[in-house]
Amino acid sequence: MNGLDFLFNPQQVAVIGASQSPQKIGYAILDNIIKSGYKGAIYPVNPRESEIGGRKCYCSIKDIDVPVELAVISIPAAKVGQVARECGQSGVKGLVVITAGFKEVGLEGHKLEQELLKICREFGMRMLGPNCVGLMNTHSPINASFANGFPNRGNISFISQSGAMLVSILDWSFEMGLGFSSFISLGNKADLNEVDFIESCADDPQTSVILCYIEDVTNGDRFVKVCSSAARKKPIVILKSGTSTAGAQAASSHTGALAGSDRAYDAAFRQCGVLRADSMNDLFDLARAFSAQPLPLQPRVAIVTNAGGPAIVTTDAVEKNGLKMARFTKETIDQLRENLPPAANIYNPVDLIGDARNDRYHFALDTVLKDNNVDSVLVLLCPAAVTEPLETAKSIVELSQRFASKPVMAVYMGGKSLETGNNYLTENGIPVFTFPEPSVRAIKGMVDYAGYKNNPAVLEPVELASIDQAAAQNVINDVLADRRVVMLGHEASSMMAAYGIPVSHSYLAETEEEAAKIAVKVGLPVALKISSPRILHKTDVGGVEIGLHSEAEVRRAFTRIMEKVRYFMPDAPIYGIEVQNMVEDGVEVIVGMSRDIQFGPLVVFGLGGIYVNLLEEVTFRLATALVTREEVEKMIAETKAYTLLKGYRGKKAADIGALTDSILRTARMVSDLKQITEMDINPIRVHTKGVTALDVKITIEDNDH
Amino acid sequence: MNGLDFLFNPQQVAVIGASQSPQKIGYAILDNIIKSGYKGAIYPVNPRESEIGGRKCYCSIKDIDVPVELAVISIPAAKVGQVARECGQSGVKGLVVITAGFKEVGLEGHKLEQELLKICREFGMRMLGPNCVGLMNTHSPINASFANGFPNRGNISFISQSGAMLVSILDWSFEMGLGFSSFISLGNKADLNEVDFIESCADDPQTSVILCYIEDVTNGDRFVKVCSSAARKKPIVILKSGTSTAGAQAASSHTGALAGSDRAYDAAFRQCGVLRADSMNDLFDLARAFSAQPLPLQPRVAIVTNAGGPAIVTTDAVEKNGLKMARFTKETIDQLRENLPPAANIYNPVDLIGDARNDRYHFALDTVLKDNNVDSVLVLLCPAAVTEPLETAKSIVELSQRFASKPVMAVYMGGKSLETGNNYLTENGIPVFTFPEPSVRAIKGMVDYAGYKNNPAVLEPVELASIDQAAAQNVINDVLADRRVVMLGHEASSMMAAYGIPVSHSYLAETEEEAAKIAVKVGLPVALKISSPRILHKTDVGGVEIGLHSEAEVRRAFTRIMEKVRYFMPDAPIYGIEVQNMVEDGVEVIVGMSRDIQFGPLVVFGLGGIYVNLLEEVTFRLATALVTREEVEKMIAETKAYTLLKGYRGKKAADIGALTDSILRTARMVSDLKQITEMDINPIRVHTKGVTALDVKITIEDNDH
Repeated sequence: MNGLDFLFNPQQVAVIGASQSPQKIGYAILDNIIKSGYKGAIYPVNPRESEIGGRKCYCSIKDIDVPVELAVISIPAAKVGQVARECGQSGVKGLVVITAGFKEVGLEGHKLEQELLKICREFGMRMLGPNCVGLMNTHSPINASFANGFPNRGNISFISQSGAMLVSILDWSFEMGLGFSSFISLGNKADLNEVDFIESCADDPQTSVILCYIEDVTNGDRFVKVCSSAARKKPIVILKSGTSTAGAQAASSHTGALAGSDRAYDAAFRQCGVLRADSMNDLFDLARAFSAQPLPLQPRVAIVTNAGGPAIVTTDAVEKNGLKMARFTKETIDQLRENLPPAANIYNPVDLIGDARNDRYHFALDTVLKDNNVDSVLVLLCPAAVTEPLETAKSIVELSQRFASKPVMAVYMGGKSLETGNNYLTENGIPVFTFPEPSVRAIKGMVDYAGYKNNPAVLEPVELASIDQAAAQNVINDVLADRRVVMLGHEASSMMAAYGIPVSHSYLAETEEEAAKIAVKVGLPVALKISSPRILHKTDVGGVEIGLHSEAEVRRAFTRIMEKVRYFMPDAPIYGIEVQNMVEDGVEVIVGMSRDIQFGPLVVFGLGGIYVNLLEEVTFRLATALVTREEVEKMIAETKAYTLLKGYRGKKAADIGALTDSILRTARMVSDLKQITEMDINPIRVHTKGVTALDVKITIEDNDH
Repeated sequence: MNGLDFLFNPQQVAVIGASQSPQKIGYAILDNIIKSGYKGAIYPVNPRESEIGGRKCYCSIKDIDVPVELAVISIPAAKVGQVARECGQSGVKGLVVITAGFKEVGLEGHKLEQELLKICREFGMRMLGPNCVGLMNTHSPINASFANGFPNRGNISFISQSGAMLVSILDWSFEMGLGFSSFISLGNKADLNEVDFIESCADDPQTSVILCYIEDVTNGDRFVKVCSSAARKKPIVILKSGTSTAGAQAASSHTGALAGSDRAYDAAFRQCGVLRADSMNDLFDLARAFSAQPLPLQPRVAIVTNAGGPAIVTTDAVEKNGLKMARFTKETIDQLRENLPPAANIYNPVDLIGDARNDRYHFALDTVLKDNNVDSVLVLLCPAAVTEPLETAKSIVELSQRFASKPVMAVYMGGKSLETGNNYLTENGIPVFTFPEPSVRAIKGMVDYAGYKNNPAVLEPVELASIDQAAAQNVINDVLADRRVVMLGHEASSMMAAYGIPVSHSYLAETEEEAAKIAVKVGLPVALKISSPRILHKTDVGGVEIGLHSEAEVRRAFTRIMEKVRYFMPDAPIYGIEVQNMVEDGVEVIVGMSRDIQFGPLVVFGLGGIYVNLLEEVTFRLATALVTREEVEKMIAETKAYTLLKGYRGKKAADIGALTDSILRTARMVSDLKQITEMDINPIRVHTKGVTALDVKITIEDNDH
């Protein structure tokens, strides 16, 4: 475990609060370390004991005559600070603080936790916890926890923000035959958090897949940076809870964590190649798949079955998950036809029919695995009179090992009669499921991850010409000097101009006459839009008129707008009316930004117009990671707006390149200028050549002062 | 089993094709009937045997000297017809035809099957199969199948179109502790199908929940009629496969069944109160819930837990499923506060924290079950040092029985250490899950079903005044006489008028002059729309101009439209241009119809306009069951169009009553007039008072001739 060896593979461990009494946590920890087969030196520490289980017990860590790498602490919260200081003075490198009673219990505990953290920093110690179950590593081995049991050795690392969940999964894993390399209980994450362990597990040769249960991410920027690099090495599957409003409340009352908006998590996970599990079952189904099977090259699935019904259910799941049913080569089909009974189905799904013994399975599986159009294989088996579950399991294992580059999974639909086959598969690395749907979902996860691995996130920003950050900053400063936080139309236009985003020309007119003059200057026809810091939805109050072809029309429209706005919003301060040239046709989309508390600016793109909130046909990305054309293009392609942009129902295609550029510039702007809190370019019109931002709303805050 | 007693509880059973040889299916059937404890008379029939297992074996059914109620047939397909005829002649009431080699093997088999069916009809016999595993009833008891085993007695009926799936589930059910009242393998459904068994299981006092796996529905109308009544009595949960394009292909090659469009199934299931399982796990999770627990009154869920993390995951699932976290009464909160340790969370989810023993669970569960704001309770338990899984299980069972009107389920997260508790729960009717999400989904299913049961489908059509079916039929006849299948605008308008759906006036003009005259007659401003049987999307070819305020504008627009249309569609026959009065503002929605092969006309409603296919913000109903205002109102409320209709962003509400009326009339029209194959009213504009159909497309077919 790169960098955290003093935690996972310490030369010496002290158990501070070690106890004689089997009811005490301090007993369980010491006992667990010994039983796990830990090979280093163990030092029990407890001023009230002189010996525990035949081992000398020390009064204080300071009394131990060699430097100790790791101290596991389980003593009352009030004393942890002092003990941690002694650890620091004695040269301890890592602390595992089991003790509860810190941040999770309120203000007093929060203070204690801050002090503890300060002590760690002072002595350069790293800390896991407080308020955690501890950690385990099956390869060193060490069980520095009070959990009841030690996992089977394997290649899954499980990092959990919930200690109870970790203990539950440990208990459950024995039945499932799951093997782990490490179990990490994060506790309050005062110092070390999920990102530290994802980083270290990614470099751990004993770990093939990293699982996390988390309720929040403390440092969004670092999470994205570390995970997008770690995910190139190993699959990371995260169950992030607190996704619901109610869930977020439960999360706050549970760990005092501030739950970030779920959309930001979705965007962050997607952008850095992290798979998001949608349930606990999903988390462990994916773990089983990744821990034992290679990644599929593409999404083409073959099914081999002895029953039609379950094959149809599986085929449905393949389509629902966006995977593809493999189309066999002519050679495969010919071979299947020649060697299977006439009643068999030789196309995908290959139905060996109910009287299939192992020989038929072996032949068919061998044949489809050879086929270059097949990327992964699901073997379905239902118990019938002549079915040979164990022999078939042996064939699956043998052939899966021979075709080691293609994932193979099994669905053994039944109970007792399939048990020996089932166990054989599990013991030999074939994920086996009772029902088909979860197996397909697991393959989908593998395909998604393979996609990321082959085309990982690039965090190096592309060059963007003609950006004048200083000019934009000046606009912000002027608005703030005017004691406003909402920009007027012409101010927002200047922001666009400063970042090279084409915007329709817009000038403020205070009178009919002025409006008419500007209209002639920018070129008729024009649009008029009310300018008021209080009015955000201008159309709703009659504040917009478009397609004005003459000076007279402009004058009349000016009067009408003023009348309507004064009627609807009598108290709103009116700065005047923006006069804007009309721009050529195109597809209207929205590009916008909101700021997430954990992950910073989120860029939104999608169908624009006044129904944007109704339709929710939008997609999100973290602005800080939205820095390459490829990522923006992926983003654009995700929503239904893309169908319009490509040219819908005979229309010409819109200039997606120019739109991409504008989105990149928007992301750059909101990353550069942290005072921008919200921004809507709605609509930005995408022409057959170029784009024009038509209506821009920018809200800022005075966070520098 | 009402009506099918000769199948489920026959006085006499003949096994035709009974065998001495344990390898033969005819052996297994006889053996199963005997072993199941069947109390009636058993008659083996096989001309080549004189005795089987000590029983006299008959040469033919005709040789048995008493009338036999049920014959189970397992002989070569070619001989089944003759034997069935003999059964008919001997007064047999029911056949279970196990034999395969019928419709599923192709044309020859199909012919055999039709002949077999004819014989059954001739003698008034009912038939299960052919090509099936058989049937079982644990209460009569009888096992008239060749499956390996007999289910535990219980109250679930499982009807399966896949024999293999039935056998798999049987095998699996022993481990899960699931109990069944009957297992029915439908086979090819030549005579009896899922609807017959749903009907009979609904009246079976031993059945509490009906599960189906089906690949198609043969008779949509009857399905809807029977299920909407059966679902008032008992929950029906169906896994319908072949939902995907690829899945439908697999379905066709499997049973030769024509898979109906998935949307029609969705609409049919929803309208008649059938729950659709989205996976095999889901099917059986729902079965466990319904078989043992009462229905919740409302969707307010309480959670009692000893760990925070799993509770957050559960809370997330509650919200994702559209359920509600119960808000406790003050009394409940006070009691929890007084009696639980200070670190506990006394709001929902109630967190008893890690050191909770059974006493704490008992108290908290008792307290929340008493609360009138709680409709269902989930008990979460993670293994910790002092956890008492078995004692807690006993408390759950005891309290669940005491509060017998509220469903209680358990999530025991772990493995071996929870096993005894787990088993106790299962044996005593508490559904227990390893992870939280499926338990929440099960409650959601119960809440949905309770909603249907309290407000079941009404199939009695409401009165609709001023419908002139004959006038509409005349329009259809005229169009067909003109050898067309697509109606022109003015013809479609007449159809609307005949069914009392307000439509904008529209007249066909062939010249500029005529258009100008009509414009004055219907009242300026007007809209012009090209009229051509070849042009379906008029806007796309420049065939529409709106807001024409003067005769001169009308003339110019006429010319422009003609020019553009001739440019884009030089070969399209042009009938002229429709002149239509402009109608007042409103919300534009789509009301339409397409015809499904199984379920007949499907009515669609949703966001209208040219993006209707892009946005897919639409919902479907079977026209034949869309006959009450309540059902139409539910339909309208399902899509985002509803948000607009209610008055979006300050706009006035639209006339939902008038829209409801128009949808009812549309459903009536397409039910009355079977020649209509497709219809789009897009848009129909909903004003603050009334509606106007603006553009109506109707396609018909000549199916009467």
